[in-house]
Amino acid sequence: MKNLVNNLRVLGVETITNAKSGHPGVVLSAAPIFYSIFKNLKVDLQNPKYFNRDFFVASAGHASSLLYSTMHLFNMGISVNDLKNFRKVNSITPGHPELETPFVDCATGPLGQGVANSVGLAISQKHLAKIFNKKDIKIFNGYTYCFLGDGCLMEGVALEAFSIAGKLKLNNLIFVYDRNNKTIEGGLDIAYEEDTVAKFKAMGFNVIEVMEGNNEVLIEKAIINAKVSDKPNLIIVNTIIGFGSHVEDSEISHGKPFTTEEVKKLKEKFNIKNEPFQIDKNIYDFINKINLRKEKEINKEKKILERYKKKYPEDYKKLEEYLNFGYSAEAIKKLDKLNIENNLSTRENNHIILNSIFNTVKNVLGGSADVNTSTMVYLKDEKYLNDDFENRNIHFGVREHAMGAISNGITLSGALLSFCSCYLSFSDYLKPALRMAALMDLPVFYQFSHDNFLIGEDGPTHQPVEQLVTLRATPNVYTFRPYNNAEIIAAYRFYLETKKPTCLVLSKEKVENKKYGISNALKGAYTVYKEEGELKGVILSSGIEVSIAINIAKKLKGVRVVSIPCFELFDKQSEKYKQSILTDKPKIALEFSSSYSYHKYCKDGLYLTMENFGKSGNKNDLRKDFNLDDESIIKKIKKFLKENE
Amino acid sequence: MKNLVNNLRVLGVETITNAKSGHPGVVLSAAPIFYSIFKNLKVDLQNPKYFNRDFFVASAGHASSLLYSTMHLFNMGISVNDLKNFRKVNSITPGHPELETPFVDCATGPLGQGVANSVGLAISQKHLAKIFNKKDIKIFNGYTYCFLGDGCLMEGVALEAFSIAGKLKLNNLIFVYDRNNKTIEGGLDIAYEEDTVAKFKAMGFNVIEVMEGNNEVLIEKAIINAKVSDKPNLIIVNTIIGFGSHVEDSEISHGKPFTTEEVKKLKEKFNIKNEPFQIDKNIYDFINKINLRKEKEINKEKKILERYKKKYPEDYKKLEEYLNFGYSAEAIKKLDKLNIENNLSTRENNHIILNSIFNTVKNVLGGSADVNTSTMVYLKDEKYLNDDFENRNIHFGVREHAMGAISNGITLSGALLSFCSCYLSFSDYLKPALRMAALMDLPVFYQFSHDNFLIGEDGPTHQPVEQLVTLRATPNVYTFRPYNNAEIIAAYRFYLETKKPTCLVLSKEKVENKKYGISNALKGAYTVYKEEGELKGVILSSGIEVSIAINIAKKLKGVRVVSIPCFELFDKQSEKYKQSILTDKPKIALEFSSSYSYHKYCKDGLYLTMENFGKSGNKNDLRKDFNLDDESIIKKIKKFLKENE
Repeated sequence: MKNLVNNLRVLGVETITNAKSGHPGVVLSAAPIFYSIFKNLKVDLQNPKYFNRDFFVASAGHASSLLYSTMHLFNMGISVNDLKNFRKVNSITPGHPELETPFVDCATGPLGQGVANSVGLAISQKHLAKIFNKKDIKIFNGYTYCFLGDGCLMEGVALEAFSIAGKLKLNNLIFVYDRNNKTIEGGLDIAYEEDTVAKFKAMGFNVIEVMEGNNEVLIEKAIINAKVSDKPNLIIVNTIIGFGSHVEDSEISHGKPFTTEEVKKLKEKFNIKNEPFQIDKNIYDFINKINLRKEKEINKEKKILERYKKKYPEDYKKLEEYLNFGYSAEAIKKLDKLNIENNLSTRENNHIILNSIFNTVKNVLGGSADVNTSTMVYLKDEKYLNDDFENRNIHFGVREHAMGAISNGITLSGALLSFCSCYLSFSDYLKPALRMAALMDLPVFYQFSHDNFLIGEDGPTHQPVEQLVTLRATPNVYTFRPYNNAEIIAAYRFYLETKKPTCLVLSKEKVENKKYGISNALKGAYTVYKEEGELKGVILSSGIEVSIAINIAKKLKGVRVVSIPCFELFDKQSEKYKQSILTDKPKIALEFSSSYSYHKYCKDGLYLTMENFGKSGNKNDLRKDFNLDDESIIKKIKKFLKENE
Repeated sequence: MKNLVNNLRVLGVETITNAKSGHPGVVLSAAPIFYSIFKNLKVDLQNPKYFNRDFFVASAGHASSLLYSTMHLFNMGISVNDLKNFRKVNSITPGHPELETPFVDCATGPLGQGVANSVGLAISQKHLAKIFNKKDIKIFNGYTYCFLGDGCLMEGVALEAFSIAGKLKLNNLIFVYDRNNKTIEGGLDIAYEEDTVAKFKAMGFNVIEVMEGNNEVLIEKAIINAKVSDKPNLIIVNTIIGFGSHVEDSEISHGKPFTTEEVKKLKEKFNIKNEPFQIDKNIYDFINKINLRKEKEINKEKKILERYKKKYPEDYKKLEEYLNFGYSAEAIKKLDKLNIENNLSTRENNHIILNSIFNTVKNVLGGSADVNTSTMVYLKDEKYLNDDFENRNIHFGVREHAMGAISNGITLSGALLSFCSCYLSFSDYLKPALRMAALMDLPVFYQFSHDNFLIGEDGPTHQPVEQLVTLRATPNVYTFRPYNNAEIIAAYRFYLETKKPTCLVLSKEKVENKKYGISNALKGAYTVYKEEGELKGVILSSGIEVSIAINIAKKLKGVRVVSIPCFELFDKQSEKYKQSILTDKPKIALEFSSSYSYHKYCKDGLYLTMENFGKSGNKNDLRKDFNLDDESIIKKIKKFLKENE
């Protein structure tokens, strides 16, 4: 139904022209692709979160007006009015896809990440199928579709993720590549001259080329073929950017809305005589027939689920837990009873706690970027998820960025939590993914070890300085840098109770593990060492530095130590509480990290922080070299307190 | 000389055991590779910075003890004593390679980046050859060698960079891949199952496999073949991690120093009876012969350069300018005379200034991550560098991370400056490279446009919030967020005078362009609008928000506006100067960005900042939605000033 696709094209372009903002080029090139995918996309129109739906990720998020227009045609919660509100504040049709819009499975915009999110979604489908499907009744059988453009193919995060998809043989994953051979700066070949087919075959992909990008029958045929492949799929669709318009095949079509006159000409070309946003009834009717077919399929699946419920009541109960991100209450109860050895590092403590919690909370997948023995973030009694998808540890390889974005994708399934880990210094590599977790409000537990220059000999590349303030300044991320096991447990309790994007920052250094109460830690900051005698000053500190602070405070009179494991939670406390622990006395910030974190609560204070990169050396030599050894710190504090008496 | 390579192995391992820290696995697998590369590496032992040397980058930076041991054998500035000081504070043999060590061309450690740095170095060699070589006299003909491991092959930044290398046909680039098939978490195949040969061929590489990784003759043969290729080269050397040791072929060998006993056994296996760190004279003699050959080659080249100097004196003078990062003084003189139209955005102003400056400063390469029309950071009268390497604009493609690391590599040549650009929000993608520029103190000019939520309709993924404080908190990075052309010019003056890693943060919004004096801007902060009447409060602001602040201050009495284009420079001013502009009056921070930047100078202040992600919408609607429209701001300021009277 060629007419349908051209109507879709025009609708997408009109949406942009009306908003005076958007990306018409991809609307005109990729309309047949969107139509073909959505025709095949299994969704329950009554329930956007239907657990066994197919997922769709528009990695090239600037195709948003095409996405919304397609969703409109397919009766997926987008009205003409929504299209007219495209890119308007608080609409459900924002500039790039966001989770607030029903039926949108993933927020995109930063190129490449959608590819990795899709890999996460596909992994979750495979894992859930392995856990829940029975020989006689299969309740998980969905596909993950990902739409991508030339730009996504260049981004490192996508290239990392493709490699993992190939390794895991994710044959439920269908990438559809809108090869229009244009990028913003010009023809694709100005910056890319690869044999894409050979490259993807080398990565273990099933590659299908569709030469006629305007032939939606061929695209659909490719999709149907992809669905029975034993490998992840790349469908390359050769298209023309800005197809049919005055800027056909030109990069100029990418980001410049058409004028009303230009839209008029486009419609003439397509022989479409309708008013703006008007779609003929026969098109709606045609799509309704497709939707009816889908409804039948969904109804069939619902009946299968009923059978499953009867035959496997325990598994069905488990499924309900999974679909509610469950098991948390049970795990939280265990938290208080945990008995952890003294004199361990926070990474060692975390290893014990993580294993205890995720022994109860089964609905989680996670791993590290090839540093499991260093971060100690893995499930010790469990094997690694391989292409049987049974186990819950993931080998992400040395691919921090994809690890973050795949972890995001795993939770987007709505049935699995995820955790991931690397050194704090290399959190930089995955920061763009962490930001998307925050923006989408995903329950991903990011864990970072080796959290300051005391890691020593590996030197400044491995020693974080500015990373902590970056995490703290990122909206909707809760960063815990615990000093002892109570504070680690507080982080888990927070994560399990709120399902917010949470970071846990861990150390190699051994510390005392006396419990000070988890509820105190959940206030974000609290007094861990009460001053001896009259209060003269307050040390504010986090992580391993708290134990240094306590040792030092014991040698000084009138010095209080406040541990601040989570700035975000402390920010939310009453002024009265804040004042009660911070007081009006002079403040000292002790954290081997950028001082930018501390200016808020240590006004006019003494900063025992890191303003420069670290060095390679053993930790004691380094502390001396940076004048941050106990003796130097004591000297500085004494001087500061004297000056501020 | 098999004995030589085994002695090198033992030296590298002893260095680690002595330091009780380091990575023995790669020393034992890759010693033949290092020997073969260094045997062929053109260096001037008298001058580590010899302009036409071959470059060597150890992308797998944890091979540092092998690097230093090889440099020791090859008489490249590393003594036995230096080896004994391996990983000690302030030694020239730190845990990962750093630029402080003579003959080290690139600091490495974070995996993958070295690959992109090498691409930058190779581009610079090609460009310099194009600019300086004559038909009859060629003074640039160096190669860039890059050593990499299995981990580098997985990192996105490396994958982006390989793609660019293939596109540019960088046949002077020789990657030597230590394929020991092990990663920290286990065998490589736990996370990587690609046909590496086919993949690199698809990216336009010449791929050479060396099956016997212990045969340095074969490795050298591969290198010699690579040198005459018309494509970038990947030499895959099949090796065995931990070769010859008790942990041969095991991932355990990666990061755990050997005990003295284990070293003893290793030496028995290799039939080496020397004391620790003792190398037989015949080995030194053998290498001296190699070094003599190199010396002859260098002397020949020096004579060729003399001929060049005589025949092409103008070009020779130009060469001297390049090798001193020259032309800056001349360009700075031009800065003051620039006449820039009023009522342009800072990105438009920057476009004019950039073009003016880099018309004089010819020794620069730069580009954008496929957003040149948006950032406007390109040389308008010049074409793009292609595989003839003549022009100075680079199409980096949608590859922010590789763009940053390649830009770093370009300046590592010692003869070229570089600039690069993307949206501020996507500075996250290249942050790891920016950090390395800071750590290496490289003259890279990072330019970021679209610097706050006023960009509007593209929505929160494209609207930076936490990026500014990240840049400001990163050591040794100077971040300028200019409000007008004087402040942009100040950024260029700073960059050209200091050659420090500099960031320039630009806006789409049009602003008035009245000059307030470049010297003021170079103080980091200064008064741009003096209060009318008695001073009641001070607004501290940067970028486009300064113009908002001025408009508002004009409507209020007693409000001063201080522009703070560069926190790092302001931090360095005298307390007296700071006090003179900030005063003791109440402060107001006005920046549509995380407040973490401002706590330092706006104690107990009013924060008109962004603590949440933005939204998609037009800028006026957004300002209202976030209560940051003029009216709301005025109301808040009035209330704040009243409360603080």
